[in-house]
Amino acid sequence: MEISAINLEEKLSLFSEHWSPRIIGELNGQLVKLAKIQGEFVWHSHAEEDELFMVLKGRLIMELRDKIIEAGPGELIIIPKGTEHLPRTRDGEEIHILLFEPKSTLNTGELENERTRRELEWI
Amino acid sequence: MEISAINLEEKLSLFSEHWSPRIIGELNGQLVKLAKIQGEFVWHSHAEEDELFMVLKGRLIMELRDKIIEAGPGELIIIPKGTEHLPRTRDGEEIHILLFEPKSTLNTGELENERTRRELEWI
Repeated sequence: MEISAINLEEKLSLFSEHWSPRIIGELNGQLVKLAKIQGEFVWHSHAEEDELFMVLKGRLIMELRDKIIEAGPGELIIIPKGTEHLPRTRDGEEIHILLFEPKSTLNTGELENERTRRELEWI
Repeated sequence: MEISAINLEEKLSLFSEHWSPRIIGELNGQLVKLAKIQGEFVWHSHAEEDELFMVLKGRLIMELRDKIIEAGPGELIIIPKGTEHLPRTRDGEEIHILLFEPKSTLNTGELENERTRRELEWI
């Protein structure tokens, strides 16, 4: 792929679906993804993969089993493998996040249900 | 390490040295680093590691052998392994960047000189 500057706002303008990450980059077997999320996801964990969430817009609420962490723009959260987590937003807010995780990572982790996205689109 | 929100501005306030990345996170054998840069680095490449530069403040000029790419806040550049590159800024501007690369990555790549930083500090 040609080397160029990847503009996050421009990439975010290309999709509107919630909880359906798009791929914008790849390096060292890891994918860089963008996602728009609103409301609540499902409790899940990834047995083998650590996962990074960077907030670009809005406020991410990350529920863990023993506490709740919040992050806004300019903040990131790293969820170590095996850690159960439930990402959500507050009061129906749509937020934008950047994800960084191995190519093998499934969005619902060890779970598989109607929210699972197997084939992610490159944008 | 305890899971918490990592605030980029707060971390950036903890150091001022140029061309001396600090580590703020680790996942899947990769490090998340912050750096302040000003002026020109050195031409180098990384034989085995792809490298991600995300601009947080200012304008990054990335010279490649066949073209020059620029990136501002909200933009990122991925340099594939083996690609010679020279990061720099314009007119003495200090800029802030986030780096994402394998733990094994040396800042000067295959080169080793006075700009090489072997022991990076966690902040």
